[in-house]
Amino acid sequence: MQTLESLQQQINRAFSELVFPAAPAELYEPIIYTMQLGGKRLRPLLALASCDMFDGNIEDAIHPAIGIELLHNFTLLHDDLMDQAPLRRGKETVYKKWNATIAILAGDTMFALSNRYMLRTRSEVIPPLLDLFNLTAVEVCEGQQYDMNFETLDDVSIAEYIHMIRLKTAVLLACSLKTGAIIAGAEINQAESLYNFGINVGIAFQLMDDLLDVYGSADKFGKVTGGDIVASKKTFLYLKALELSGIEAGTFKDIYLSHDLSPDQKITAVRSHFDKLGIRDLTLQEINRYWNTAVYTMKSLGLPEEKSHLLMTYCAGLMERDY
Amino acid sequence: MQTLESLQQQINRAFSELVFPAAPAELYEPIIYTMQLGGKRLRPLLALASCDMFDGNIEDAIHPAIGIELLHNFTLLHDDLMDQAPLRRGKETVYKKWNATIAILAGDTMFALSNRYMLRTRSEVIPPLLDLFNLTAVEVCEGQQYDMNFETLDDVSIAEYIHMIRLKTAVLLACSLKTGAIIAGAEINQAESLYNFGINVGIAFQLMDDLLDVYGSADKFGKVTGGDIVASKKTFLYLKALELSGIEAGTFKDIYLSHDLSPDQKITAVRSHFDKLGIRDLTLQEINRYWNTAVYTMKSLGLPEEKSHLLMTYCAGLMERDY
Repeated sequence: MQTLESLQQQINRAFSELVFPAAPAELYEPIIYTMQLGGKRLRPLLALASCDMFDGNIEDAIHPAIGIELLHNFTLLHDDLMDQAPLRRGKETVYKKWNATIAILAGDTMFALSNRYMLRTRSEVIPPLLDLFNLTAVEVCEGQQYDMNFETLDDVSIAEYIHMIRLKTAVLLACSLKTGAIIAGAEINQAESLYNFGINVGIAFQLMDDLLDVYGSADKFGKVTGGDIVASKKTFLYLKALELSGIEAGTFKDIYLSHDLSPDQKITAVRSHFDKLGIRDLTLQEINRYWNTAVYTMKSLGLPEEKSHLLMTYCAGLMERDY
Repeated sequence: MQTLESLQQQINRAFSELVFPAAPAELYEPIIYTMQLGGKRLRPLLALASCDMFDGNIEDAIHPAIGIELLHNFTLLHDDLMDQAPLRRGKETVYKKWNATIAILAGDTMFALSNRYMLRTRSEVIPPLLDLFNLTAVEVCEGQQYDMNFETLDDVSIAEYIHMIRLKTAVLLACSLKTGAIIAGAEINQAESLYNFGINVGIAFQLMDDLLDVYGSADKFGKVTGGDIVASKKTFLYLKALELSGIEAGTFKDIYLSHDLSPDQKITAVRSHFDKLGIRDLTLQEINRYWNTAVYTMKSLGLPEEKSHLLMTYCAGLMERDY
């Protein structure tokens, strides 16, 4: 069994050794820039840890792990353009630093490269692996579309919201885990269970993200608290509050969707309404529900405790909770 | 052996049976719209004909053939956005009919779907097939980048231009042919020769496209003659003329790159300069050179004449020439 540190070292080494062609520079410079922005490299870690859990050879999983990170960064690059986001990880986004055309083409190239990295593993596992990978890519695109639709939709149900974050966030975490399992030669039902573990972790992770935006400290979370409120983002907290607001729903909605209030005024008003309805605890309950399902799914694999320990601890850490 | 008509029928049937998900409609409607614009479906035909030439099962190649067409249409969709082209096959382009965001995301989804279609064949051939496919996708992106670079570059050599059209146009034709060969189980060197055949056909095809824009009839070619001249596109004809212009090079360049003349004036002036230098014949010679290399490469396969007849006739037809 590998340690977290050893897996992270192998990932860091692999990324530091990544080489892209020199020409055309207009195409590869933004790709190199994007990949050097770093990030947690959570998805490669999930892939390697899952491969190790099923006694696979980490060497066989390292290139697909890079492929998954390339896919993830490609989707962020195009999302930033679509959402007109100026910053990513504290640095200018590609479309801002260069232009929209460069962002489109660099992203397309990263997607093609991601598929090429997925192929650098045992040839027997390539058909299911690539099918999973490209199905996941389709789903992530669908998730982004739903997310954009929600911005202008008047009524979004909590079920629709969960469906969206499942597609936009959870499937790629689940795909990362299943990738490691497939490469390690896990049985189909085991790989599928690990996928379901990832879906539940992913949804819980996104709900925690929603919660921390309102109730987290900026220090710990790395971004200014209340950003979703200021941007009128239809998060779980907002949708749950709307559901429970009764006759106050209309007023609350007007405040939340308004762009007339100052950020501070808006955050204060919305938080006070959330507090009154106990939204913090209700969200934590929902996170718990998904996390408990994840734990149950992992246990159903019947692996010895020491095998699943690394993944369980790591995923629990993602949600800043013990299990 | 199959006939051209039989292959085309199978392609048309496969495309008419294509089904995409219904939701999210914002994502799939532009994809369905794009795929229904039709086109010659040249690349699927090349894939099936090549599979048949090596005695492969056409059924094994039909889904990858769709995958190649999806990739091709995805690149056109993103190119149209990057080039701000209002029309494609006489209809509004996706970014015009919808918007840039939809065009980006629909294109991304088509690329992911194209990989999924490539996987629907014999599993033994999937690793080399998908590697070829995604390498080709990278190269097509590089070609588009060079093409855009050339718009603002002062000096483009003929060698650089050929390199660009090789990437932007020829590699996908070559990939289509090699896809059929791989699926049919052709030997590696045979598949590679067919790839080289495709590269040479592709370059000849693009040079003919350049030529017909100036010297073709609008009826036959389906687009207004002289469009490249009006748009100051650095085609083979322009670059060859510049090379041969001697002391007139500066004046000719000024006219060609100018946007002050009326289209008719500009076309007349440029054509008269081309005529003086014999550019028409020089371009035909260059096309012949690539075509002869293609014919030689096909013959080197040592297949009976009746095996290669369909592909040779079809490719010769693409260039409106006998062989």
